Amino acid sequence: MDNRPIGVFDSGIGGLTVLKEIAEQLPGEDVVYFGDTARIPYGSRSKETVIRYFLQSARFLLTKNIKAIVIACNTASAMAMEEAQKEFDIPIIGVIEPGAKAAVAATKNAKIGVIGTKGTINSQSYQKTIRRLLPSAEIIGVACPLFVPIVEEGWENSDVAFMVARHYLLELKEHNIDSIVLGCTHYPALRYTIDKVFDGKVNLINPAYETAKVVKAMLKEKNMLSSKLDDGKHCFYVSDDPESFKRVGGNILKNEIEQIEKVTIEEL
Amino acid sequence: MDNRPIGVFDSGIGGLTVLKEIAEQLPGEDVVYFGDTARIPYGSRSKETVIRYFLQSARFLLTKNIKAIVIACNTASAMAMEEAQKEFDIPIIGVIEPGAKAAVAATKNAKIGVIGTKGTINSQSYQKTIRRLLPSAEIIGVACPLFVPIVEEGWENSDVAFMVARHYLLELKEHNIDSIVLGCTHYPALRYTIDKVFDGKVNLINPAYETAKVVKAMLKEKNMLSSKLDDGKHCFYVSDDPESFKRVGGNILKNEIEQIEKVTIEEL
Repeated sequence: MDNRPIGVFDSGIGGLTVLKEIAEQLPGEDVVYFGDTARIPYGSRSKETVIRYFLQSARFLLTKNIKAIVIACNTASAMAMEEAQKEFDIPIIGVIEPGAKAAVAATKNAKIGVIGTKGTINSQSYQKTIRRLLPSAEIIGVACPLFVPIVEEGWENSDVAFMVARHYLLELKEHNIDSIVLGCTHYPALRYTIDKVFDGKVNLINPAYETAKVVKAMLKEKNMLSSKLDDGKHCFYVSDDPESFKRVGGNILKNEIEQIEKVTIEEL
Repeated sequence: MDNRPIGVFDSGIGGLTVLKEIAEQLPGEDVVYFGDTARIPYGSRSKETVIRYFLQSARFLLTKNIKAIVIACNTASAMAMEEAQKEFDIPIIGVIEPGAKAAVAATKNAKIGVIGTKGTINSQSYQKTIRRLLPSAEIIGVACPLFVPIVEEGWENSDVAFMVARHYLLELKEHNIDSIVLGCTHYPALRYTIDKVFDGKVNLINPAYETAKVVKAMLKEKNMLSSKLDDGKHCFYVSDDPESFKRVGGNILKNEIEQIEKVTIEEL
């Protein structure tokens, strides 16, 4: 048994969807969450910069005596996993592999779509992982830069959202895709709109949910589950204004965020 | 006369619209441009973080022996001007004052709209400056977070852009606003769409153009114009991937960007 907390990293607030799944599937685990809100979004940055920002963030999490790192950010999972595994000797779980596996399990016709930020799509990480698992797969990746601001405006079920989604997803629909990986933490909020574009005929894969399942299995296998019987404690750190994180984050978690602190990590 | 370059700061690439106006109105001036592309966008960050990022950027520009700083970024102009004037003893020109003055000169009914990022609008900088110049003014500020990604997708004249603009600008139209400050470097690209929402009955103020006029007048007054007869040289520095800046920036400037370098400024 291992009662140290799990470290969860995200470029901002979107990773709370992963934290929420972990809390549901592993209620006894303590979690330390770091959101790099001063430098969000990672999705449009170069690989080199994403790696630098992620390693600084992970070094900060390591100061909190964590037993594993979950990379909730799709862009960082796509770009920085290799470097992270080189530098740190605790288990590191990203969202790419669990999301890709679930898509392969879900598809009937081996036609899979991946949607995400420019960084995630251009990195080809989901595409390569899916192809490794299912070499015959036809995979189409589409970057959807307007989806995050639409969700942040609370417009996820609006006419604008539908029009934008129809535009972005046209190619996937034309290619008869039957499963789509929602490769950005914000996108599950758009699932009803995306479902409408496909007239309900598509499997939508949420990597947050799949990742929490993998974290649970990994901790179990390595005998690293917490032995605590009470609900785990969740601590939050951010690199910019904690107040807006607290407000918006409370809505995502459906639970008030109590312990939150702003930290500067650029020197790490 | 003063042949040192003018320093132009922006959080990213949008400030090239200001550089372009400076190059047109002051063709003999050398310019050093810094775009903080590794930490863009500033528009959603806290005041404290914007000030810290801007001061680091300005300190970098100061190492290039500049004679003045032009803050092309609306958010940084709104949030960091006071701190900048405390720390640096060369002239500093932001976009707020020139934009506000032009709106006051343009309005006939003293009803003025200001649109920009959340940071710019919430800072109330344009609103306060306009009120100082025209105390009777009725001013409505609206944050339009979807406008930047729409422009970056190249969708500025699309149905989506019109629908989003109509939604954001409804309140301004209902209040019979006759002049709007385009308070974000990307927004001039949306001028035809915004004009369409107002059936052509609105003055659109471009602070980039107004700021270049103020820079010219200031340099003339202080006898700091360049004495060079040839076209000025423009050097570019960015904090992330120079290649994409070069490509997109070349389109904005209608001129190839030749001299560009990536720099790390976090320690400044």
